[in-house]
This record gives sequence, structure tokens and C-alpha cells, in this order.
Amino acid sequence: MRTTTTTGEGRLLVSGEDGPGIVAAVSAILTGHGANIVSLDQHSTGPSGGRFFQRAVFHLDRLADQRSALEVDLHRELGERFGLQWSLVDTAVPKRVALFASKLDHCLLDLLWRHRRGDLPMEITHVVSNHTDLAWVGDRFEVPFTHIPVARGAKGEAEAAQLDLLKGTVDLVVLARYMQILSGDFLAALGVPVINIHHSFLPAFVGAAPYRKAKERGVKLIGATAHFVTEDLDEGPIIEQDVVRVSHTDSTDDLVRRGADVERLVLARAVQAFCEDRIMRDGNTTVVF
Amino acid sequence: MRTTTTTGEGRLLVSGEDGPGIVAAVSAILTGHGANIVSLDQHSTGPSGGRFFQRAVFHLDRLADQRSALEVDLHRELGERFGLQWSLVDTAVPKRVALFASKLDHCLLDLLWRHRRGDLPMEITHVVSNHTDLAWVGDRFEVPFTHIPVARGAKGEAEAAQLDLLKGTVDLVVLARYMQILSGDFLAALGVPVINIHHSFLPAFVGAAPYRKAKERGVKLIGATAHFVTEDLDEGPIIEQDVVRVSHTDSTDDLVRRGADVERLVLARAVQAFCEDRIMRDGNTTVVF
Amino acid sequence: MRTTTTTGEGRLLVSGEDGPGIVAAVSAILTGHGANIVSLDQHSTGPSGGRFFQRAVFHLDRLADQRSALEVDLHRELGERFGLQWSLVDTAVPKRVALFASKLDHCLLDLLWRHRRGDLPMEITHVVSNHTDLAWVGDRFEVPFTHIPVARGAKGEAEAAQLDLLKGTVDLVVLARYMQILSGDFLAALGVPVINIHHSFLPAFVGAAPYRKAKERGVKLIGATAHFVTEDLDEGPIIEQDVVRVSHTDSTDDLVRRGADVERLVLARAVQAFCEDRIMRDGNTTVVF
Amino acid sequence: MRTTTTTGEGRLLVSGEDGPGIVAAVSAILTGHGANIVSLDQHSTGPSGGRFFQRAVFHLDRLADQRSALEVDLHRELGERFGLQWSLVDTAVPKRVALFASKLDHCLLDLLWRHRRGDLPMEITHVVSNHTDLAWVGDRFEVPFTHIPVARGAKGEAEAAQLDLLKGTVDLVVLARYMQILSGDFLAALGVPVINIHHSFLPAFVGAAPYRKAKERGVKLIGATAHFVTEDLDEGPIIEQDVVRVSHTDSTDDLVRRGADVERLVLARAVQAFCEDRIMRDGNTTVVF
Repeated sequence: MRTTTTTGEGRLLVSGEDGPGIVAAVSAILTGHGANIVSLDQHSTGPSGGRFFQRAVFHLDRLADQRSALEVDLHRELGERFGLQWSLVDTAVPKRVALFASKLDHCLLDLLWRHRRGDLPMEITHVVSNHTDLAWVGDRFEVPFTHIPVARGAKGEAEAAQLDLLKGTVDLVVLARYMQILSGDFLAALGVPVINIHHSFLPAFVGAAPYRKAKERGVKLIGATAHFVTEDLDEGPIIEQDVVRVSHTDSTDDLVRRGADVERLVLARAVQAFCEDRIMRDGNTTVVF
Repeated sequence: MRTTTTTGEGRLLVSGEDGPGIVAAVSAILTGHGANIVSLDQHSTGPSGGRFFQRAVFHLDRLADQRSALEVDLHRELGERFGLQWSLVDTAVPKRVALFASKLDHCLLDLLWRHRRGDLPMEITHVVSNHTDLAWVGDRFEVPFTHIPVARGAKGEAEAAQLDLLKGTVDLVVLARYMQILSGDFLAALGVPVINIHHSFLPAFVGAAPYRKAKERGVKLIGATAHFVTEDLDEGPIIEQDVVRVSHTDSTDDLVRRGADVERLVLARAVQAFCEDRIMRDGNTTVVF
Repeated sequence: MRTTTTTGEGRLLVSGEDGPGIVAAVSAILTGHGANIVSLDQHSTGPSGGRFFQRAVFHLDRLADQRSALEVDLHRELGERFGLQWSLVDTAVPKRVALFASKLDHCLLDLLWRHRRGDLPMEITHVVSNHTDLAWVGDRFEVPFTHIPVARGAKGEAEAAQLDLLKGTVDLVVLARYMQILSGDFLAALGVPVINIHHSFLPAFVGAAPYRKAKERGVKLIGATAHFVTEDLDEGPIIEQDVVRVSHTDSTDDLVRRGADVERLVLARAVQAFCEDRIMRDGNTTVVF
Repeated sequence: MRTTTTTGEGRLLVSGEDGPGIVAAVSAILTGHGANIVSLDQHSTGPSGGRFFQRAVFHLDRLADQRSALEVDLHRELGERFGLQWSLVDTAVPKRVALFASKLDHCLLDLLWRHRRGDLPMEITHVVSNHTDLAWVGDRFEVPFTHIPVARGAKGEAEAAQLDLLKGTVDLVVLARYMQILSGDFLAALGVPVINIHHSFLPAFVGAAPYRKAKERGVKLIGATAHFVTEDLDEGPIIEQDVVRVSHTDSTDDLVRRGADVERLVLARAVQAFCEDRIMRDGNTTVVF
């Protein structure tokens, strides 16, 4: 499942309009530079006229040194010849991630714990919260905690402060049950993906209080959904989902409690997939290798 | 899980406004008539002012003979004293069930197969279809198959024919992927519960083509929902749900195929629960013991 | 699912040889003392000659005051007349629990976190470890941490120290990935149940290194098992189990990592069930209401 | 998930000792012959010195015509240069499969039903049973049913008759709850893979009566395992497994009933994976793409 990070391991991500010869071209370039492909996943949305997605993991000694030469070939072959998007990632460079939380601790703690035990190949550059309840994690997990309050009617100022902090320093923002809606302007200015965990099985129960709605509707399973944040609330591309069985004996509080276990697990899976470059966007859906 | 049907086994279902002493009253009546309670499930929606639901299974020799005397006591104690609804069921009497299908066979075949192997304590009184594709099951499973076509614009006539056939002869109608919407008038005139299988995890993807919508939304799990049919399409009380994991590699056709496995399983569970008197309605939700 | 602990709530647990009239007797006693039964679960292993298990939850004002009188009746009716075992529990009194851990933190942290957020109705009286790696949880979670090293060949001394600490002060010991085998003498002297989490789907892969064995055998699911500890290693009554899907891409290390999520969840469910008096032993199996 | 079978689609399966350049060589050969790779899965068991597994799906017009030329290149490059095993499959040619059953119908019926609706890309060449109970499926599903009784002490004669029937005419034998153990001699003489469904979560509960053993052990989940048959009973490479939750309320008969749902699903998945050339053996385990 996971790829052990070793010196000289890279990932090549390619996407675009499908066509004959892409796989051969990619593997020829990599092999031509002395790389050994250790894993290759590919997906086409249709036999003709579809979209093409590929993730290759390869070993290459002195990857950093050879990177420029490799990029020249990739640009010429994949970019110019096939008109594809591509990106080359050095596995040794962890993703820089900011975690946003409010008062609920389960998703944040779980990510911090998984990171500390070495499961998540990322660097936690910031923990940001609009409250101070979770400030203690700064010391405990040795991560920089920043309190940016969001006063009623002054979200713009808060977002400006968040941008000051994060702009250009992160590859991903994770909303670990952060209870504020981010504006479209903020998302555009931030310029990196934002992953949110929604506490329902989307598209069921969009918006607020999904567990109360689930109780009222009498569903027999509740779920959680990790998705990329877009301007349209709860409408972004879904990355991962899971559910847990409930029954008439569960109160809304019980659903909250049971749901927390699913939320933290689903969010952790999504963050791990992102940090391992397994997620590729396809319109409003995702390919997760 | 299942209760073996033996001579002299009964079920007592009680519901209504909760209050002290109900359990004692029920068990005193049953014990007073010589019954041995072998299983008892109870649910209260709240510690005070809640709704009360109980299902008791008991052994009682010569249940048929003693039934009248037992009902007198139940009426006096539960009905008059506590103001509760109750019903007494002789386990030896199977539910009379009509199965409706159109062209898709998986749900119908699965119910017929489970019935033949003795899993579902019911009598299949009719198989009704608006097509003749599945007429062969009549001979194969020894059930009466009736073809009632539904001509465009003539649903009223079809429903009249269905009512002629079923009225007063069934305890339950099961829509095993029957592709017609039943009118409120039909439901009212029929007067018995109708269970439908919807091919999505409700309330996600109500209405037509849920698998196509699921593909477009990019969900990572698809599901099925068995529910009681009400006038509001796809809004009735949910009985049972389950899901299965899918991925970007699954086409809409694949979702249809994978979903079929969940549909037949979820519907079978719901029908079994009904036939064993495990389902009690609580407003627009269900208690399933 | 969970019962909110309020003043005046009790639980009555009854088990023994099944026979007619038990439910009526129990409910008559409780109702006679003014209790309102809010939940009642019952299980019989067979229609005749079987074993009987019952868990009743009831509301009773001034439970503490009335307890003695209630116990007199329970002793006479249930103990003497029916020959049953019973125990009366005041829901307001949390279970006293000692948590044992070694170096692995996931199960311990998860229990501590669930306890802090109010999910587990227990008092953590001790955290005991044969290492000091996890000593920091003492301050963080405000629980007494005791380091009792287990020197090679000197397990007897360690167990003596453990007994000094725990004897008579706990209702349950939880082995949260405690990497030492407890002797039969210790278990006997301790005199309270011990719950262990085994990192496999028992009875598959008993003994050491189950994830390595799972990898070698090529299973497609791995699991965890919470069970009561008996003298026979990995053979005690199973309380709860769950699994997670794995594939050929998962290394043994990946199985360890994925398994950790299942372990902590399964152990938490088992501990919660114990603290809510939902578990009753039936020979080498359990009834979990 | 599934690949639609169209004219001109092929699959290339490659396995052997891993080494640099294999992916590039494979894709160069395919592209050199005008093939378009539409899907490629690859697995290596280790970064160096590991075993290599690859499954490529490609489109190639007039595949049948070009097959010989393609095979020449594959033999030279993959076989001689890299020392790899490979096989080239025309997707248009369905696998020839014999289904063995005894009296239990659920696995056999499920495979026949899935085949009829077009889910399983195979040709059912024979249904073989040691009993006549299921002879009716011959007419119903238009498959040749052959009754080969297995008299006590005369298994050799039965196996000889089976070999007469099957030798050289099948690519796979599926034991759909066939209640006879096949001899090592039979397996060797047959010369094609045999897939069995075992009614437990292997390696738990090997041998006979797994559901009874599961009940006695008090497990909380039961499962089913599809595996390749080897001379060592229940020890062959596992292809697919799944489980379902059970509880103390389930009798052994209930486990049998619930388990049947898992058995038929797990076996169908394994057969589908085989027919789509997704399964590659790796010692006593499998890679399932």
C-alpha cells in the first residue's frame, strides 16, 4: 500500500487526454534515464476520447542531480508531443501541511498521532485554530500552534491572517473539523488544495447538523466524507468515504460519538493518499490510486 | 437471530406512550396464561414522555385455544389501562406476501430462492409483474405468476387489477425492483405495508438513475435502502441499508452490477425482519429488533 | 446504544438455567419496588434446558436507599426460587479499571482519549507499564502511571507488585497491547476479569507475530480480537472482533499499521461494553447485549 | 473494475524476477506493434531481488492476425532477455469453466445467474455433480449437467470419469460447495487451476464443520475463503475472503444461512477475477489486480 521513502525514489504523475503510446513514452523516458519503475497505476475513463491518469513510482540514483535533465525530456515528450499535464515528485520531500481545527479534537489528534508514529509522510508546518482549547498539542506533538480567532462579522480579517501565515509555505490545508466556512477568495488566494472532512455520507445531509438529520431520517448507517473544498459547500470532489452501522437505539449523541471514529479514519486515509500523491482530480471527481 | 417456528409459539408486539409498569404488566399477563417468555426486546425513545416499543416471543401450549382469553386480558391491561397498541401473532401462521417485479430478476430470484430453502417464514401468494420476462419463475418456484401490464396513461386500470387480486389476501407487498410508482390511492386501498428497495443509500440520490448520479458525484461507496412505501417517493421509513465500496475504475454499469448484490441482500433482510415481526414504525423511522 | 448515567438508574444482570416465569418474576420485583424498566435484553440458548441471560436497565428514585430491600427480594426470588445468579449495579458507580501497556501507544491513547471525552463510564485507577515510554500520559490525561518493570526471569516479582497495587481496587484490568503473558496464579489472585486485545482474527494466528503469519498466509482481511484472558493463551471467551481489507500490496509493516486501527477500535468497544455491563460469560463464549 | 470485452483487446501477463527496464520493454513491444495500453497494473514484492507481476490490457486491431508476430517479440525480449514468464490472452476468448457441486445450490445458482446476466466472461462447459438434486439447472440455464456419482471407496473411478470429461476441455474447475476432496493425482492429471470456496475465514476453522466450530468458539464474525486447491486441504493460495457479523443470538444453523450469502459472493468474485486474468500466484499467496 505505502511506498517506503528512500533516497532516489520519485513519483511521476501524468494526466490529460488519452491516446496511444503514452505508457510506452513514459516508461521509455524513465528507463532512458536509468530509472527502475517499481509501481505503475493507470486509469483511462474510456477506450477512446477518454481522460488518462497515471502514477509511476521509480527508483533513480541521484534523483536530485538528474532531475533537470529528466524534466527536459518529460516536457518535450509528455507536454509538447502528447499535450499532457505532468509533475515530478521527489519522494524524499514531504508535503508541507497545515492543520485547521476548532474545538473538537478527534480528527486533529488522530492526524498528529499518525504523523508522530511515521504513517504520514508530511511535515506539519502549522496547526491553526479559531480557539485555544487545543493549544496544548503544540508542546505535546512539537508542532507550531497558531490561534487565529474568527470574530463574528470579521472572517475577512481572520482569513487575511491565515493567508499571511500560510501563503507559499504549505502544499495542503486540512480542515480537521474546522467549524468555519472558507471563502472563495481565500481558497483562490491560498492556491493549494484544501481537504475537509464532512460528518455525513455525502451527498446525504449536506450543510449543518448532519447527525441530527440522520437521526430524524432514521438511516441505518452513518458516514463521513473527505473531499476537496471548493466554493460550493460540501460539493467538492470526494476523496474517501466510509460508514458505520447504527440503529434505533442510538441517540443523536451516539451518532456523533460513533461518527467521530469514522471521521478520523476517513480523513487520515485522505491525507495519507494526498501525501503519497495518490489523488488526481477528474472534474468534480477523483481518481485515487 | 431467527426464531424457529414451532407449534405454540407466539409474538406479542406492543407500542405506545411509555410509562412505568408496562414490562411487568406484559410479563404478568403472559406468565399468568402459562406462557414462557423466550425473548424480549424493548426500546424507549426517552426516559420520560417517550414512545415505548416491545416485542416478546413466548411459548404457550395450545396457543390457538388460549388466544381469545389472552386477548381479553391484553385488551384490558394494555389497551385500556395503559392506552397502548398491541398485536398478538401466532408464529405458526406465515405472512402472506405478494412480490412485484418488472424485468430485473435479481431481487425477485433471491427472495424466491431464500423462501424455497426455508429462510423466509412467509407464503408467497402472488408474483405480479408488468412484464412477462419473469413468468418462468411461476413453474420453477411453484408460485402463482400474474401478468398485469401497465399501459402508458392507464396506471389506474393496472392498479385496479392489482387491487382485485390482492385486496384482503396479503399481509405485505414487496416491490422487488418493480419499476412503477404506486399511487397514494392504491396504497390506501391496499391497506397493508409495502416494502420497496431503492438502489441508493437514501437520502442520497432520490428519484431515477441513482447509479448514474452516484458515478457523476464520484462517491466511493454505493448502497441500497429498503423502506416502507409512502405517498412521498423515496421518503418512507427506512428499514435496512447497506453499502459496497466502489472506485474510479467502476463505470456506471459496474455500479449497477455491484449494487445488485447489495439490493438483493438488503431487501431480503427487510422482508425477513417483517415476516418475523421485528419491524415497528416510529413516525417516519423504524425500530428493527 | 449507550445508556446515559443518571441518578437513580440501575442495572440488573441475571443468568442461569432457563425456566418459565423468570421474566415475569424479575419485572414484578422491579415494578413492585417502584422501578421503571427502560430497557430489557434477554437471551436463551435453547427453548428447553438452555441457559438464560438477562440485562435490565431501570429507573428508581433513591436507588441507594432502596438497594437493600431490593436485594432481599432478588435473593429470595431469583436466587432461592429459580436458582439463578444475579447482580445489581448502580449505574452511577463507574467501573474501576487498570490499563496495562508496554511501548505501543495506540490502544492506550485511544482508551484515555475516549475516557476523557466521556465515552467510557469508568474510573481509570491505574496505568501500569513495564516500560517508561508512555509515562507522559500520566500528566496529560491525569491518571496515575506506575512503572513496574518485568525483568527477565523475574515475572513473579513483577506480578507481585502488580497485585499489591491492584488487589481489591479494580473491577477490570485491560491489556492495551501489554506484551507480557500473565500467569494463571496472577489471574486467580487478581480475582477480576482481564480483557486483552489480540492482533488477529482469532482463532487464526494465535501466539506471536500474527501479522507476519497473516502476510505469509496471504489472507485478504486482517483483524483484531478482544477477549477475556484465561490461563490458555488466546483461548479465552471472545468479546468483540473486526477486520479490515488488505491486499498483496501491503507489507507486514502495513498490516501492523492498518491493524492498529482495528485493534484500538475493537478494544474500545469491548471495554465500553464491559463498563456498561453488557457482557455476560457463557462457558467459553460471551453474550454481549 | 471490469474490462468490457471488445474485438481487438488483449491482456499480457508477466511475472518473474524483478529488474530494471521490464516495464519499458513491455510497453515498447506493445506500442511497437501498434497496441494502445489501456490499463496496466504492476506489483513488485521488494525494491531489489523481488518478484515482479504485471497485467497489461491493450487494444490492438486484428489481434488474432498479429498474435504470432507479437509472441515472437515477447518471447525474445521477456523470455530470453529478462527470463520472465508471460502469457498473452485474447479477451474475446472466454475461459472454459467446469462447475462442480453436490447438493447445496447457493454457490452454483449464483454463478449460473451471474453468467446468464453477462457478469462472468466465461463459457460454462460442464456442471458436474455427485448427486442429481441440481440436475434441473441444466435445462434452466442451458448448461450441460453431468452426474458422476462418488461411491464410497470408489473415488478413483469417479475421478477417472471426471478426467475423461474435462481433460483438455477446461481452463478452470470451480468447486461450488462440492463436498468431495480431490486427490493430488486428479489435480496433477487435470492440469488446470481449481478454485474452492471454504466456508470459514481461513486459516481459522480448517476441515469439516467450520460453522459448528465457529459457534463453539464464540466468534463475532464468520467468513468465507476462495482459494486455489492444492494437495494440502484448505492450505492453498487464498484469492478472496469476506466476513459477516454474527452474535450470540445466532445458532449454528443461522451461521450456515448467513455464511451462504458470503460464500456465494466471495466465490463469484474469485471466479470473475480469474476469468479476467486478474489473479497471479506468488508462491502460496496470490496477487489479485
